[in-house]
Amino acid sequence: MRATVMYGAGDVRLEDVPDARLVEPTDAVVRVTSAAICGSDLWPYKSMEPSETGRRMGHEFIGVVEAAGEDVRTLEDGDLVVTPFLWSDGTCVFCREGLHTSCLHGGRYGDEGVDGGQGEAVRVPQADGTLVVLPVDEDDALMPSLLTLSDVMATGHHAALAARVGPGKTVAVVGDGAVGLCGVIAARRLGAERIFILGRHEARTALAQEFGATDVVSERGEEAVERVRELTGGLGVHSVLECVGYEESTRTAFGIVRAGGAVGRVGIPQYEALPMVAETFFANVTIAGGPAPARAYIEELLPDVLEGRIEPGRVFDRTGPLDEVPEGYRAMDSREALKVLVTP
Amino acid sequence: MRATVMYGAGDVRLEDVPDARLVEPTDAVVRVTSAAICGSDLWPYKSMEPSETGRRMGHEFIGVVEAAGEDVRTLEDGDLVVTPFLWSDGTCVFCREGLHTSCLHGGRYGDEGVDGGQGEAVRVPQADGTLVVLPVDEDDALMPSLLTLSDVMATGHHAALAARVGPGKTVAVVGDGAVGLCGVIAARRLGAERIFILGRHEARTALAQEFGATDVVSERGEEAVERVRELTGGLGVHSVLECVGYEESTRTAFGIVRAGGAVGRVGIPQYEALPMVAETFFANVTIAGGPAPARAYIEELLPDVLEGRIEPGRVFDRTGPLDEVPEGYRAMDSREALKVLVTP
Repeated sequence: MRATVMYGAGDVRLEDVPDARLVEPTDAVVRVTSAAICGSDLWPYKSMEPSETGRRMGHEFIGVVEAAGEDVRTLEDGDLVVTPFLWSDGTCVFCREGLHTSCLHGGRYGDEGVDGGQGEAVRVPQADGTLVVLPVDEDDALMPSLLTLSDVMATGHHAALAARVGPGKTVAVVGDGAVGLCGVIAARRLGAERIFILGRHEARTALAQEFGATDVVSERGEEAVERVRELTGGLGVHSVLECVGYEESTRTAFGIVRAGGAVGRVGIPQYEALPMVAETFFANVTIAGGPAPARAYIEELLPDVLEGRIEPGRVFDRTGPLDEVPEGYRAMDSREALKVLVTP
Repeated sequence: MRATVMYGAGDVRLEDVPDARLVEPTDAVVRVTSAAICGSDLWPYKSMEPSETGRRMGHEFIGVVEAAGEDVRTLEDGDLVVTPFLWSDGTCVFCREGLHTSCLHGGRYGDEGVDGGQGEAVRVPQADGTLVVLPVDEDDALMPSLLTLSDVMATGHHAALAARVGPGKTVAVVGDGAVGLCGVIAARRLGAERIFILGRHEARTALAQEFGATDVVSERGEEAVERVRELTGGLGVHSVLECVGYEESTRTAFGIVRAGGAVGRVGIPQYEALPMVAETFFANVTIAGGPAPARAYIEELLPDVLEGRIEPGRVFDRTGPLDEVPEGYRAMDSREALKVLVTP
């Protein structure tokens, strides 16, 4: 079968690889019908050391179950399923608490022996605990929005929960990527009264406004902090969704959060230590977040997608076959494309 | 009147200073009947640059209202009152939210023009918003416990709330100082099932056990992390109360917290950046806390003190007159005394 392999920074290839197949009795093999390139795929795209064996890529996909191991109880051949971006057993102490990202027997797509989602098929370990059956057909118009439940919409929701968004709150979203835009949707969905989007890519901030952002702040760094402070009577915002992961964006988040407020961080940290220790301490700022337990959120968010109340699929602005995956990476890395949907 | 002035590291003196007097119509003058030396007073005692004018010390006290400004509505001469360690107006947006430490019109004892608590009397700004009347006499046997509501018991409670302690939770308290011991009381009070105290001062860890700690961990650093992990089946604890403020103790806190758990930090940070960014991120650890809004907690904790359900006053192991304040600093700094009560 064909699948995406990254061999180093900027070096993404479509290759023939061994067919996905059942290995453990808890596995399922899923034929991929829709997949996505993730903003987090761009970190290795920028910095990966050259590798002879390469790394299989992709952790957001929807597909059809083609085979299920003998211990799999909840899935049948032909089921259309969406996966969270990590696989998990669904039964360990952390899964039972809804923190599937810390599953004691879980792992990542693309790790040794496990396929990536940007390919024709995937062996999904712990299939019962991982996959969620979708009550639609694979050509349903909702497919882009359903695909965001794999990661970006779940991650935006996680950022909003970690930042304690709620009715009447003033919220800021740092970052106008797909996660930031889904963060706007999540903040609106949870009842935020005012939502600042911090970003300077006009098409994206315009989409953020359609999703519910009330104010666009195009300044950066200290100027962004001053602007948000000015717009909030000097107080700052109750909730900040940090959807980038750089030290500078984290400083911005800490600079605009109100005393007693919370920063939900979901951008994978590209720095060594959290800055502004004294500022966040004396203002009693809560810092929360991390990788989103998407598996826990899919069932919560699914009805809103199915009934059209949220349309996170609008973050996809380009669709193409597997062959175009390398071009998709290039376009997303250069910010020409917001998010790329792949149809193997 | 006589009051405590610090002139530099290790240089604390009792001096004659101008009498406390009303300045603003919202002030009260309080004759101090009990005061305390705080662990946080030891930070300048270790490091303060020499100063010619010095700094008035003390922010934990109980006393009798001797005069009240014409705008003061809730206090009368003769009232016995306890103060939180910061003064606050009680009416601003943050006070109304219970975050009196961020009061827009509040401040610190000992700052320019405001007396410190380690003296004969104090001008208390924003007296209505700050002081809480106590329904006992000044010679009541509960005085030590009531005095802890000024700071250490409120701070231990804040750490426990920030660390999301609750029924059935496993908790660790990093630090066996007065705040850590009050953190044990708070954790027990909030229903924690198992409470680790991390400390190596035997008299203090023994008191922690009387307060409700179930396990004493005397190891430090990496060994402490290993020990707590071992005692929790490798998972770590739900809630960590960081009651020290060093980078090393923060690393310990982050090392022993369970995935999805929370660290409540109340030790004033003696370092520049929060370590272990990736570890806390990928484990979805919440970092919360800061200075305790003691004013918000006094009314909540007061019934438990008055009815004897908690006895935080047991953290005082030395009592003396104002003259002995310098010796009190020395004894606390060398860890001979746990906490010193001063009776002006």
